[in-house]
Amino acid sequence: MTAIKHAFVTGAAGFVGSNLVDRLLADGVTVTGWDNFSTGQDRFLDGARANPRFRLLRGDTLDLPALAAAMRGADFVFHLAANADIKDGWSHPRRDLEQNTIATSNVLEAMRTAGVGRIAFSSTGSVYGEALVTPDAPTPEDAAFPVQTSLYGASKAAGEGLIAAYAEGAQLTEAYIFRFVSILGERYTHGHVFDFYRQLLEHPDRLAVLGDGTQRKSYLYVQDCIDAMLHVARRGTARDARHRTQVYNLGTPEYVEVNQSIGFICAALGLSPRLEYSGGNRGWVGDNPFIFLDTRKIRATGWQPRLTIEQGIIRTLRWLEANRWVYTARREAR
Amino acid sequence: MTAIKHAFVTGAAGFVGSNLVDRLLADGVTVTGWDNFSTGQDRFLDGARANPRFRLLRGDTLDLPALAAAMRGADFVFHLAANADIKDGWSHPRRDLEQNTIATSNVLEAMRTAGVGRIAFSSTGSVYGEALVTPDAPTPEDAAFPVQTSLYGASKAAGEGLIAAYAEGAQLTEAYIFRFVSILGERYTHGHVFDFYRQLLEHPDRLAVLGDGTQRKSYLYVQDCIDAMLHVARRGTARDARHRTQVYNLGTPEYVEVNQSIGFICAALGLSPRLEYSGGNRGWVGDNPFIFLDTRKIRATGWQPRLTIEQGIIRTLRWLEANRWVYTARREAR
Repeated sequence: MTAIKHAFVTGAAGFVGSNLVDRLLADGVTVTGWDNFSTGQDRFLDGARANPRFRLLRGDTLDLPALAAAMRGADFVFHLAANADIKDGWSHPRRDLEQNTIATSNVLEAMRTAGVGRIAFSSTGSVYGEALVTPDAPTPEDAAFPVQTSLYGASKAAGEGLIAAYAEGAQLTEAYIFRFVSILGERYTHGHVFDFYRQLLEHPDRLAVLGDGTQRKSYLYVQDCIDAMLHVARRGTARDARHRTQVYNLGTPEYVEVNQSIGFICAALGLSPRLEYSGGNRGWVGDNPFIFLDTRKIRATGWQPRLTIEQGIIRTLRWLEANRWVYTARREAR
Repeated sequence: MTAIKHAFVTGAAGFVGSNLVDRLLADGVTVTGWDNFSTGQDRFLDGARANPRFRLLRGDTLDLPALAAAMRGADFVFHLAANADIKDGWSHPRRDLEQNTIATSNVLEAMRTAGVGRIAFSSTGSVYGEALVTPDAPTPEDAAFPVQTSLYGASKAAGEGLIAAYAEGAQLTEAYIFRFVSILGERYTHGHVFDFYRQLLEHPDRLAVLGDGTQRKSYLYVQDCIDAMLHVARRGTARDARHRTQVYNLGTPEYVEVNQSIGFICAALGLSPRLEYSGGNRGWVGDNPFIFLDTRKIRATGWQPRLTIEQGIIRTLRWLEANRWVYTARREAR
């Protein structure tokens, strides 16, 4: 076990970030949270703020000197800040480059300056593109060299590459790259459950669906995601490995069709809306109609998810029902 | 065959770039050359400047508006401008990001603005890292998802990812990514033959060698490299493929040990220097001690190299002997 005593969390006011902050504080860790509040939600940190071991800094990851100064004293960086708006990449083609690639370079340079050697990075299954994935089989970490299909995936793959170069170049001691499926759960404010529930609040009789609903995706409950990251980070699996960079897919060993998910949601709400499909077998340009990650590597470390996809979707829905304020707060917090 | 009528060449005053410009002009193509002359050599374009179909623009790829304006009217972009100084990545960790990743993003945005749909990109076998490459076997284009080992490789892989995202997102019509082994030949001003010959000019009795000389590398003669790029680009292999992005390894079907190359060079010069090894099985942090690319895909299109590695090394040496001015000109032109 390798203790984490003082964690630095970028994107601390986001969906995964704020849940991670709460967990670290509950575990006795000192936490410095960093967020530019472009999409973070101040209310997500209400609990953390009451804890004397928590310090929140409002800052932008593109501001390298401030970032490096803020990081001093930390012994582990969780780099979760990102642009997660995968759908609209072409309406702002520089955003992924800036917020996911250049920002990650800044985090790494700040770590060099501040002398922090360990990092965990929230990457994505989107880095696999779709080009070379075997149909219907889960994608392993060592899948074939991908052809990127979205700016988001390309920008996250670039962030991974930078982290690996720093680690293999002995500028870091341990690097953990987690390729997430879609994460959902408490404080989820971005994705299909969020969108569907908003629609059904506005018009319970109909539901617009991107694509034809046959897209198959995998989802992971946010607490399971955080469990996995902390499990691996504390075991220090990169410390004694041939490579200081360890990559783990994070997901459940199952997937669902969008249409199945609609079934879960409508049953839970007691609704039977008319489904209005936009058509085509993908939701948007660059959408991958099949995301299903091989998670044997992370499960071999002893972690496993506690919730199924269906349970995760229902829990997300219940949280949204109890927190409708997120629909009127600034949108697309992560 | 898809004609190239007006080519835009970034890095036009560099090693590969200036040779490509000459070839395109000889083929009747109109050429706009773009270079910031940070490492380009004005003299490499002496021949081109005499041709009325050639226009040279001094500009920086980081200046997006100027780049987009310069690109108007072109129908094919050869994006060769890059930082190629792989060894010294850690002394200027932002240079690869800026000159290889951000610059490539700018080239793609400029192409969108200027309405240019076809691109060829000089990538590198360094994108394969070394993590997952099978020992002694040549690395195919669909090798396992690599762990990056250098900032240079990471920055080029990121450039590839951006190009693929643009192409798969229908922002480009055809994208050709060429993963080069080390290129050598006329106007070569960067690499081991350059370094060894400079040393032997200064002190013919001894030669300092990075690593232990057992590093195995593959090399390709610059005219063979240019033949390959033009062969594929003119066939338009990406036009009718499942993916608009086509990736080709470029190299010879052989490799040599650094020690063998030293043998070729010393024999050609009639010298027997004392060899002073720095030790270790790699030349620098992040050096890949084995680079050997599987080139079956490009050879299946009908291209094959005309020179062996030994012939390429000797031709390079003869050019350096006849052009010692490059050692006093600004260093590290590419």
